[in-house]
Amino acid sequence: MDFSLSPRAADLQGRVRAFLDTEIEPLEADMHERIKTARESGGDAWTPDPRIKELQAKARAQGLWNLFLPAEHAGSYAADFGTDGGAGLSNVDYAPLAEVMGRSFLAPLVFNSNAPDTGNMEVLLKYGTEEQKGQWLEPLLRAEIRSAFCMTEPEVASSDATNMAATAVVDGDEVVINGRKWFSTGIGNPECKILVFMGLTNPDADRHSRHTMVLVPRDAPGVTVERMLTTMGYYDEPLGHGEVSFDHVRVPVGNILLGEGRAFEIAQGRLGPGRVHHCMRAIGLAEKALEIACERATSRTAFGKPLANLGGNRERIADARIAINRSRLLVMHAAWLLDQGLSMEAVSAVSEIKVEVPNMALDVIDMAIQLHGGAGMTDDFPLAAAYVGARSLRLADGPDEVHRNVIAKIELGKHA
Amino acid sequence: MDFSLSPRAADLQGRVRAFLDTEIEPLEADMHERIKTARESGGDAWTPDPRIKELQAKARAQGLWNLFLPAEHAGSYAADFGTDGGAGLSNVDYAPLAEVMGRSFLAPLVFNSNAPDTGNMEVLLKYGTEEQKGQWLEPLLRAEIRSAFCMTEPEVASSDATNMAATAVVDGDEVVINGRKWFSTGIGNPECKILVFMGLTNPDADRHSRHTMVLVPRDAPGVTVERMLTTMGYYDEPLGHGEVSFDHVRVPVGNILLGEGRAFEIAQGRLGPGRVHHCMRAIGLAEKALEIACERATSRTAFGKPLANLGGNRERIADARIAINRSRLLVMHAAWLLDQGLSMEAVSAVSEIKVEVPNMALDVIDMAIQLHGGAGMTDDFPLAAAYVGARSLRLADGPDEVHRNVIAKIELGKHA
Amino acid sequence: MDFSLSPRAADLQGRVRAFLDTEIEPLEADMHERIKTARESGGDAWTPDPRIKELQAKARAQGLWNLFLPAEHAGSYAADFGTDGGAGLSNVDYAPLAEVMGRSFLAPLVFNSNAPDTGNMEVLLKYGTEEQKGQWLEPLLRAEIRSAFCMTEPEVASSDATNMAATAVVDGDEVVINGRKWFSTGIGNPECKILVFMGLTNPDADRHSRHTMVLVPRDAPGVTVERMLTTMGYYDEPLGHGEVSFDHVRVPVGNILLGEGRAFEIAQGRLGPGRVHHCMRAIGLAEKALEIACERATSRTAFGKPLANLGGNRERIADARIAINRSRLLVMHAAWLLDQGLSMEAVSAVSEIKVEVPNMALDVIDMAIQLHGGAGMTDDFPLAAAYVGARSLRLADGPDEVHRNVIAKIELGKHA
Amino acid sequence: MDFSLSPRAADLQGRVRAFLDTEIEPLEADMHERIKTARESGGDAWTPDPRIKELQAKARAQGLWNLFLPAEHAGSYAADFGTDGGAGLSNVDYAPLAEVMGRSFLAPLVFNSNAPDTGNMEVLLKYGTEEQKGQWLEPLLRAEIRSAFCMTEPEVASSDATNMAATAVVDGDEVVINGRKWFSTGIGNPECKILVFMGLTNPDADRHSRHTMVLVPRDAPGVTVERMLTTMGYYDEPLGHGEVSFDHVRVPVGNILLGEGRAFEIAQGRLGPGRVHHCMRAIGLAEKALEIACERATSRTAFGKPLANLGGNRERIADARIAINRSRLLVMHAAWLLDQGLSMEAVSAVSEIKVEVPNMALDVIDMAIQLHGGAGMTDDFPLAAAYVGARSLRLADGPDEVHRNVIAKIELGKHA
Repeated sequence: MDFSLSPRAADLQGRVRAFLDTEIEPLEADMHERIKTARESGGDAWTPDPRIKELQAKARAQGLWNLFLPAEHAGSYAADFGTDGGAGLSNVDYAPLAEVMGRSFLAPLVFNSNAPDTGNMEVLLKYGTEEQKGQWLEPLLRAEIRSAFCMTEPEVASSDATNMAATAVVDGDEVVINGRKWFSTGIGNPECKILVFMGLTNPDADRHSRHTMVLVPRDAPGVTVERMLTTMGYYDEPLGHGEVSFDHVRVPVGNILLGEGRAFEIAQGRLGPGRVHHCMRAIGLAEKALEIACERATSRTAFGKPLANLGGNRERIADARIAINRSRLLVMHAAWLLDQGLSMEAVSAVSEIKVEVPNMALDVIDMAIQLHGGAGMTDDFPLAAAYVGARSLRLADGPDEVHRNVIAKIELGKHA
Repeated sequence: MDFSLSPRAADLQGRVRAFLDTEIEPLEADMHERIKTARESGGDAWTPDPRIKELQAKARAQGLWNLFLPAEHAGSYAADFGTDGGAGLSNVDYAPLAEVMGRSFLAPLVFNSNAPDTGNMEVLLKYGTEEQKGQWLEPLLRAEIRSAFCMTEPEVASSDATNMAATAVVDGDEVVINGRKWFSTGIGNPECKILVFMGLTNPDADRHSRHTMVLVPRDAPGVTVERMLTTMGYYDEPLGHGEVSFDHVRVPVGNILLGEGRAFEIAQGRLGPGRVHHCMRAIGLAEKALEIACERATSRTAFGKPLANLGGNRERIADARIAINRSRLLVMHAAWLLDQGLSMEAVSAVSEIKVEVPNMALDVIDMAIQLHGGAGMTDDFPLAAAYVGARSLRLADGPDEVHRNVIAKIELGKHA
Repeated sequence: MDFSLSPRAADLQGRVRAFLDTEIEPLEADMHERIKTARESGGDAWTPDPRIKELQAKARAQGLWNLFLPAEHAGSYAADFGTDGGAGLSNVDYAPLAEVMGRSFLAPLVFNSNAPDTGNMEVLLKYGTEEQKGQWLEPLLRAEIRSAFCMTEPEVASSDATNMAATAVVDGDEVVINGRKWFSTGIGNPECKILVFMGLTNPDADRHSRHTMVLVPRDAPGVTVERMLTTMGYYDEPLGHGEVSFDHVRVPVGNILLGEGRAFEIAQGRLGPGRVHHCMRAIGLAEKALEIACERATSRTAFGKPLANLGGNRERIADARIAINRSRLLVMHAAWLLDQGLSMEAVSAVSEIKVEVPNMALDVIDMAIQLHGGAGMTDDFPLAAAYVGARSLRLADGPDEVHRNVIAKIELGKHA
Repeated sequence: MDFSLSPRAADLQGRVRAFLDTEIEPLEADMHERIKTARESGGDAWTPDPRIKELQAKARAQGLWNLFLPAEHAGSYAADFGTDGGAGLSNVDYAPLAEVMGRSFLAPLVFNSNAPDTGNMEVLLKYGTEEQKGQWLEPLLRAEIRSAFCMTEPEVASSDATNMAATAVVDGDEVVINGRKWFSTGIGNPECKILVFMGLTNPDADRHSRHTMVLVPRDAPGVTVERMLTTMGYYDEPLGHGEVSFDHVRVPVGNILLGEGRAFEIAQGRLGPGRVHHCMRAIGLAEKALEIACERATSRTAFGKPLANLGGNRERIADARIAINRSRLLVMHAAWLLDQGLSMEAVSAVSEIKVEVPNMALDVIDMAIQLHGGAGMTDDFPLAAAYVGARSLRLADGPDEVHRNVIAKIELGKHA
């Protein structure tokens, strides 16, 4: 075993971190403030800060661009669209970069590596036709447009994806789309132009062959964003999570991805790397929360001592360090397994991190909040928003319970 | 031992619950929606919904008014200001009413039993001069005005109350007030007219005799609400939590409560019942969250089964039931101990519930959120806001760590 | 609500405690040592120390005898067999006595209030014929003989009692018994003369009417104690847990309790008070562990400070205090509910304490062990044995999981 | 990063596993039974089963011998004493072998890789004179003799090693040793011939320069094993944990290790790899417990279903899988850091695994016990003994609390 980063990963990690520290973090508080002011004054909180575009241009110029592009599918896109080194990265090389990006809510956007655009770009890369790629993938890779993923529905338990009831019915050379989706992340952003929609096509087919994925332009007639959702009080501008209705929306059959009834096939491949990204970003968040906690613990005084010397605070800081380190290794290992090719072990590993990491991050961030007193609950520190983000992650891309079931099934299967 | 409610408590609990179910809950969603719309459109989210006043009048007419007034200090106020039965209630009789009120964010306001007004009224009742009572207590008991409590400061660790650095200096027949407070709950409400301010008076006195409590009119020159604070994204309108600066504010010495340097004496007495109220409300919240969870678990289906029949869901529901029941008894016992008179056992008991209950409530609410999937994070259910409220309670009125220290000191003292 | 003990309970509690402190505890270490020596030298570790009999006589003379006898079923037995006051106690009055007895492994035996004899005596009291009472109950009440309860089986998951496969088949005026039981507690003691056996009688009857309870003399031909079992290394002499085979054992039909196929009816009634006793004893154990922990924390020094002042130790002591107090109230409340008569609430409450209390005790005892370092694992302190006892209690009388299911069923039933 | 085992580690792991499965496990139950019978009949439970020597010879013949010998210090010993490949292994290559050995209590002994002999051999290897090596190291490497480590004392909190009060005073060309030690593991075995003793030499020196390590022959006059200790009822024969008194024991000054007052220097170096070994063995234990749990869950039936399909059992199995995997990676990473040379990161990592792994193992084993019902508490399964072993490990080599403090100190130091 060798736990050292590859030279390319180490180099990129250093550069992403430097960019983050010098270019992004200094602007972050101000950008959040601007959003808050806009939201509360009835202004526009959804159009991204113009400085994002400037930062994106700078990141792209430095090759810190589309770093998520997977080695095995990137083809010439990595070179053409500015990834440093000209080739896609393995999961194990990208994961440490995702961790750094996770330290800031804006960073993934700046590096064109934010969910759900990364997942949507991967889907287009793997399953898109040349036409679909030209029309949607390339502008996404240039960050000219953004995308959303419309899967979860308000009316059914979406933890069981076969429950999805919105329809995508082929009618001649068109697909007719009806139904309601929510938690369509990214749809608040006016630059969002394309939706990846998953709908029921053949109710009588085999459970995992009933659904189809279709590309739906945001401006197609019948697509309405009914409202933007809060998660524990946060709208997460400028991306946000929308509730979207589809009322007899019609798109050409050429917009179908991969083929009718093949949505689960796509979802399967989509989720492994996406979960690694999510989890590594959550580790970056937890690491940052621990740093903030340590700073507070060493600089504030109560009862005549620095907080670090009071009661169980040191033990809690130690537990946080243990928790982060073990989780990071679990994710890196999952990334490495994915790089070795799909296997039962990799499937289990991805579910394992999906359970482990958000819960770990919540514990660490909660400890940091507690150490800050009331301040930890405000937006004067990024802790409250971090907590909410990590909490959502226990539900997004499958709740803990579903993942535990996947793991147990594989584990028990060894003894059948 | 006898675990049955007294006839008066049982009767009042039934009537408060009926009022809640028929008068308050049906309006709640709409009132929250109105606040949200106002906030996001740059409108006025802070002036309480006019229906609150109507509900208050109705509650008062039914004697469901000022129920928090403590038997031992209520005097003729309970009778004069509408409490049913004409006398104050013991802690053990009031606690079950607080639990019912805790089911709704608006209910405490409707019954004129919301923090921090209850605590401020108790302070005035116990320590106020006749003049102070006439000027401030009586309008508070009629809910004509509201109040705030200005103690916690942004610049010092307020878990150690002796850290408080804002000043209240006697200058002839005036007190001069300077400094900055935050988490001044209730100050967002335009009806808030009076502040109970705690400031440093004699830095050279004994640690617990340095601070003074002073009544400061909200409109005194030099008092500025700098901003309203969010807790995990929520402003908690119409009360809210403010950051307030005091710049050479001058009030008459007659506004001092109890006497110079006697703030800790007041704080001591204030906090026991207040914590019982907070904790019983949190139990009401947890109980409601469990009900909502059970409804979801029995009505939603995934993988062909009601959620209740999936994986560990039943066990989690059982754990929630255990947790709520044991916590309720702990609070009732603390209330009973307070009714027996101040003792080390009562001091420990109050700290015990302050640690136990908010953490318990968080576990239960978090379970309910998880069972709801993404919906649990939105405001379509009261769970997300409940979570944030309970989380704040691990910090308000002393963080867990400070209370654990109180408990341990008493426990270890038995072996000295 | 009134949390004070009744005068009778308070008086008895004081006297049981005094007896424990002055008569039992001083002998305990020596008695344990004697057992250990006997066991390891191939001697007799199973015959109870003769001093037990002397202590029993003294306890009986003081009326501290058969205190477990339930008010509603005790009849004249309480008076006839020496219970102070001459009448049985309610559950809520007996529970605080059980807590005190739980502080010592020998105490329950000394006060003739140990499991499984209490449960067996209750069964005889409620369901025994006059003849059965004369032959078995009376000598048990005089502690002349001891008994065992033979239900759990090694070959089936006994958490589901309908799984029981050993047979009790009526053959003319005899019952023929076959099969194998284990965890038959008390059977190691040579004074054990009677077994309450549960066996399958009518495999085709309704699930809860298939089994019968039968009184089987220990010396009936065909009854063999195959071995005594350890639980985490402990034999728990002088009672112990045996594995027992029954090979064509024949007893008269008059030995059947209540009637053929009515075992579940008996088991139902048996378990409520028995679980309250177990749980209250576990609380006594936890309370004692906390005391031992506090003594260690204040008397040992490391890194220049008493252990109490190191790291999170104080917080852990506080958590233990909270946990014990809340659990005690939960058990007292369950006892009170049982006294009110059987109800769904009481059934849930008994399952709630059965989950809550042993887990709580384990946490507290584990903390105490950790504070003692290696010494905590030895038998120099009663902590290791206490831990093992509490751990067994998570399995005995139904594992946590079964009780959680009972609680959840009742809880979810409210929303059906 | 590369998570694959090196070819040498993979090959050895396969061979150690095969040896374990075919040679050791089939004998294990019988060997434990023999010990139990001997102990309880007053016989000799301490002389190792003669089959151990046969297995050792076989293991040595296959080069599965002294595999713990560290690459950097093994010199020619690995080749001379039979390690396959003729050279010592890195920590990262040895760790997976330790995991396999941890599956069985006897395996470490069979492969001559059991604590405390490995630690003692490492100390002799690194710090021993040629004479000390010839006299003690070589017979240890041949498994002709065994050793003990005498550090922990009953009278002081040994978590703070500077507390050690037993003395090792130089008197001319002899060292005079007095005092009492306990938890001297291995001293029950009659083959134990040499003790590594740590004693106070210069009370006035700097805190970490007061103590000396000395080699004390087991048969030196004045050395008395006062008693063997149980940990939760287990003696852990044939090694065991002894309480040892030293009464004016005299050994030549040539028996001093490294030099007077240099005990901490030795302890420091000793503990890193030793803790990695302990932790990897604990992972092997947890892995085996999970396997046993899965076998039970799929083969036993209650309420008409396999246990695996009841309540939260699957979730618990999933959590166990997550916990083991993350812990293993944390240990492997610590091993790798140790291989890179001593660093603050490595020091922290070793403390991190020492906290994480035993607690993880306890959770997993406890879950497995619970799934087995009462059987899990007996010795019919290796779970109860495994639990006790893992519990002891939270205390041995420094309790959790001390390690958390080390971690926190390093973590907070980054923010100084």
